Amino acid sequence: MTDPTPPSMSGEEMHALVERLYPLCRSITGDGLRRTLEIVGEHLPLTVTEVPTGTEVLDWNVPKEWNIRDAYVKDAAGRRVIDFRESNLHVVGYSVPVSGTYTLEELRPHLHTLPDQPDLVPYRTSYYAETWGFCLSRRVLDGLGEGPYEVLIDSTLADGSLTIAEHVVPGELADEVVVSCHVCHPSLANDNLAGVAVAVALARGLRRPRYTYRFLFMPGTIGAITWLALNRERVRLVAGGLTLACAGDPGALTYKRSRRGDAVIDRAVTYVLRDRPHEVLDFSPYGYDERQFCSPGFDLPFGSLTRTPYAQYPEYHTSGDNPGFVTPAAMADTLDALTQVVEVLEGNRTYLNLSPYGEPQLGRRGLYESLGGRSDTKQAQLAMLWVLNLSDGEHSLLDIARRSELPFAAVKGAALALLDAGLVKEKA
Amino acid sequence: MTDPTPPSMSGEEMHALVERLYPLCRSITGDGLRRTLEIVGEHLPLTVTEVPTGTEVLDWNVPKEWNIRDAYVKDAAGRRVIDFRESNLHVVGYSVPVSGTYTLEELRPHLHTLPDQPDLVPYRTSYYAETWGFCLSRRVLDGLGEGPYEVLIDSTLADGSLTIAEHVVPGELADEVVVSCHVCHPSLANDNLAGVAVAVALARGLRRPRYTYRFLFMPGTIGAITWLALNRERVRLVAGGLTLACAGDPGALTYKRSRRGDAVIDRAVTYVLRDRPHEVLDFSPYGYDERQFCSPGFDLPFGSLTRTPYAQYPEYHTSGDNPGFVTPAAMADTLDALTQVVEVLEGNRTYLNLSPYGEPQLGRRGLYESLGGRSDTKQAQLAMLWVLNLSDGEHSLLDIARRSELPFAAVKGAALALLDAGLVKEKA
Amino acid sequence: MTDPTPPSMSGEEMHALVERLYPLCRSITGDGLRRTLEIVGEHLPLTVTEVPTGTEVLDWNVPKEWNIRDAYVKDAAGRRVIDFRESNLHVVGYSVPVSGTYTLEELRPHLHTLPDQPDLVPYRTSYYAETWGFCLSRRVLDGLGEGPYEVLIDSTLADGSLTIAEHVVPGELADEVVVSCHVCHPSLANDNLAGVAVAVALARGLRRPRYTYRFLFMPGTIGAITWLALNRERVRLVAGGLTLACAGDPGALTYKRSRRGDAVIDRAVTYVLRDRPHEVLDFSPYGYDERQFCSPGFDLPFGSLTRTPYAQYPEYHTSGDNPGFVTPAAMADTLDALTQVVEVLEGNRTYLNLSPYGEPQLGRRGLYESLGGRSDTKQAQLAMLWVLNLSDGEHSLLDIARRSELPFAAVKGAALALLDAGLVKEKA
Repeated sequence: MTDPTPPSMSGEEMHALVERLYPLCRSITGDGLRRTLEIVGEHLPLTVTEVPTGTEVLDWNVPKEWNIRDAYVKDAAGRRVIDFRESNLHVVGYSVPVSGTYTLEELRPHLHTLPDQPDLVPYRTSYYAETWGFCLSRRVLDGLGEGPYEVLIDSTLADGSLTIAEHVVPGELADEVVVSCHVCHPSLANDNLAGVAVAVALARGLRRPRYTYRFLFMPGTIGAITWLALNRERVRLVAGGLTLACAGDPGALTYKRSRRGDAVIDRAVTYVLRDRPHEVLDFSPYGYDERQFCSPGFDLPFGSLTRTPYAQYPEYHTSGDNPGFVTPAAMADTLDALTQVVEVLEGNRTYLNLSPYGEPQLGRRGLYESLGGRSDTKQAQLAMLWVLNLSDGEHSLLDIARRSELPFAAVKGAALALLDAGLVKEKA
Repeated sequence: MTDPTPPSMSGEEMHALVERLYPLCRSITGDGLRRTLEIVGEHLPLTVTEVPTGTEVLDWNVPKEWNIRDAYVKDAAGRRVIDFRESNLHVVGYSVPVSGTYTLEELRPHLHTLPDQPDLVPYRTSYYAETWGFCLSRRVLDGLGEGPYEVLIDSTLADGSLTIAEHVVPGELADEVVVSCHVCHPSLANDNLAGVAVAVALARGLRRPRYTYRFLFMPGTIGAITWLALNRERVRLVAGGLTLACAGDPGALTYKRSRRGDAVIDRAVTYVLRDRPHEVLDFSPYGYDERQFCSPGFDLPFGSLTRTPYAQYPEYHTSGDNPGFVTPAAMADTLDALTQVVEVLEGNRTYLNLSPYGEPQLGRRGLYESLGGRSDTKQAQLAMLWVLNLSDGEHSLLDIARRSELPFAAVKGAALALLDAGLVKEKA
Repeated sequence: MTDPTPPSMSGEEMHALVERLYPLCRSITGDGLRRTLEIVGEHLPLTVTEVPTGTEVLDWNVPKEWNIRDAYVKDAAGRRVIDFRESNLHVVGYSVPVSGTYTLEELRPHLHTLPDQPDLVPYRTSYYAETWGFCLSRRVLDGLGEGPYEVLIDSTLADGSLTIAEHVVPGELADEVVVSCHVCHPSLANDNLAGVAVAVALARGLRRPRYTYRFLFMPGTIGAITWLALNRERVRLVAGGLTLACAGDPGALTYKRSRRGDAVIDRAVTYVLRDRPHEVLDFSPYGYDERQFCSPGFDLPFGSLTRTPYAQYPEYHTSGDNPGFVTPAAMADTLDALTQVVEVLEGNRTYLNLSPYGEPQLGRRGLYESLGGRSDTKQAQLAMLWVLNLSDGEHSLLDIARRSELPFAAVKGAALALLDAGLVKEKA
């Protein structure tokens, strides 16, 4: 597959966006999320929707909005031994406000560590049970004396709204290709600032596409639920979709199939990946927002593209998932694969052979080399023979590329040459 | 899969039953068969049916009844060199009476040995051709002088009846699960006293099941043919069946699929076996009475469960297949696998997700842990997500367990929790 | 599979036919092709059809007829440094006449060599672009001085006709099995004189077959197109077909499936090949005339049988593909496999079990050994059980042989025994 256009953003530019977004304290609602979308909006025009607390969305209700200004655990000397300003991971997401003095013993039920990874701070949230807590490394916890400690969480949990943002690239068709990124995790780079950055780059590279492309930047689960609730009719237009996450770690690309298992998006992505190290997983109802898009009532053709899947790398949901963990090269590779997926979706057509009895004489139409007997056969000619043979109305160009194991660009080029020669027509 | 109830019989108890039944001279008819069923009847109430000689059953007729009191070959010194009282294998089953004096040369056409296993006595029958014979070890044959010998077979082959026995455990449903054991082999332990003992134990362990369970103890081939002839209409109720044989040798469990290949019984047994050493074979029209149940006119969903399959162990159909060859542990393992198959069949249901658009909010129903972000996910929660996602009316719990690779008990537990929460209902 | 009849031609006789045909200068038209068919006609009565230049055949037109008497490149000393009389490969097929004096520099665009195989002469044609050229070994080219050279090609390219030949063995059925050999290559032995010789031997061995067998000897591509154009209705009768080529090299047999992929011909050939070293390839629209027979408008059940496939051996389309490259043993092996394919096609039937409830009692019909209990089971009895079990109208004998992994002859023998016994009847 040849792609003469350079990518809209380099790996380094995407990495710079990750670094810029990294310090913000995102959650499923609140100002950190809004600020993140503002920065994304500098690269990509976004339509932002605020959905008020309490709105019924499918089986759920939009939760209260959470905001936080500061949080710490101070020792007797007034030193912040746990400090929100150092890393927003130190506070359990959606912690209710607290202010008081606690001994270590009293604090322990509110402290979360990773005993097996003693240098890392875990990521924890409690969206739907009102509680509070701090996350810290095991090593820091082991160094803490008995206290007492001054504890503050200066947060608010109140009526407000949930924020979702969309960028649409209109196409010739109303049918949509959707890329969805969760954007609710605080200082975690691979999960999912890398996905956000790659999505931004992909969106910026689209030029007058055939399909309409919709990019969704939303909090995980409740964001997808809210968007689906607001778009129950529109989803009928979804021709294919991907959740994009963990897009920047050095591992191989991983595709998780849609619930349908063999939708066009499944065939397109697995076809593109066959030329690089990759893994393909069957659908399972756990992971990212494909859980919602592929719920049985919707059953949308949504797969999930990641590099190393969630929970399969030790840095997952810890302070180890920082900008140093994601690389420009990995993000550029993810973008390149997605660009090829788009090329396949855009170029995929089904043609009908208008001269289906025997092979048409390609030579007199200038489509076949005249000197026979050579034992090597050019890819372009092979591609024409494949397109002619399988253009019976049952096989798309993607099907033909998969069956022939030829590059999609060669198959598409062959089809266009045959179209020019009047030997095929597009299937109605 | 958790099973808090202890098995109804221990491996040792099953082995004791094998040892008690072992000396009886069973055949496809006769008093040895009746006495065997009496002893089984001490453990399990049986309905015994006697079908008279000559009765037309499908393409066959019930044969004459065979009984034997004594048989021997005596040398000139009056010593029984071949003695029925030492082992009933020494006489070819269904031998007609004989009394006379024979030289070794005259006897030879009536003597059967195993040249490759010179210490073992073979098992031979001649049900449908009237003849007589003795079986002995090659080593004994090699030690015999020229004779003459006094030969006696004190048998009768006369009008009588064929005996079949059934034990039924009534369930909520008229639909039946059938377990069939052939019980026509004389002193052979694995083939099939072990199968009989395991079937007895399985039957005794059933408590108010949903399906009706029918246990058949019948002579091979003609017994199954007779039962099918008497139950041509009833077999429509068979939801699944197994022939059970060779259930006590130390080899791995082996499942042979039904003729249909992917019936519920096939899916249940192969699912249960995946956690232990096992082998799965495709259907073939040779083996045990699945040959009859799976004949094309009936085509019942009958598989066959054995440990090492027939003819695949050197002791098969020889005096080596004695109680020392079968072990309490192997029989307990077969019983355990069957118990799990029953649990799967009993618990298998198809549910409908009543909240199919997006995931329902499990947390507010107390079905989901409230603290998010942890990288380990509990099996119970995964099972709920699988049940919700696949409960579209097309997938049973067994299908879901197979697809998710979760324990059936976890999937069933998840479904019951969701049922309690009003999130699913049973499909009508 | 037992075949008591010796083959109609030995490997040596087939090889002698290859050697006799080898020197002729064949092309897609002309007297070399006609002379070839005359020699084939000495072994097999042929119906020869001449189709005039310009005739419209599907998307093509029959080309002008090409004939050549002599051709050379002479050096200043009058020595033929390239000489058609030494090998007809030296002239590009369909070269237009030329006569003149050329320096080496002027000649070079018309000279074809194989730089990687410097001792071999390539095979080249230019059927549909009017040009001329010579083929020679790289080593000879490297030894040529600057010239000038006297160049002659004494050819004619004029209105005439294209020649195709058929041999038909009428059968009980109008349905046809077709074997097609391209016969347009000049001095190339494996591609395809070996195929022609094996086809001749196969045809000569047929005796009162059930199917009608049609053997086609035609130029590649345009010959098949012409035959299809003349037989657009008849092709509905094709029950199965093979293109036969590269039938004499020492490599393993290779079967390329029809476009349909699982037609009876595909199942028959792959079944026969399972007992020998072989390879099976999926259909692709490149290769021999299966390209035409399997074009989507016709979609005939045509596979392709070769030994080493085209272009996969270094001698392919070079002077290395001479009679020394093909062996009597390889041709005899190809013939033997084809003979077995014919036996399968001829013997394949679908029967209905007339006693489908339970197994019928084979013993009283003399179809089953009377002494039970033996652990070995005869193939013939197994075959009867398989035929009875699968003769439900959905499975042919070939299906049963494939499923049971028994020899086709055993399955067929079992079916005939059951037919004699009135237990099965042929499906209408």
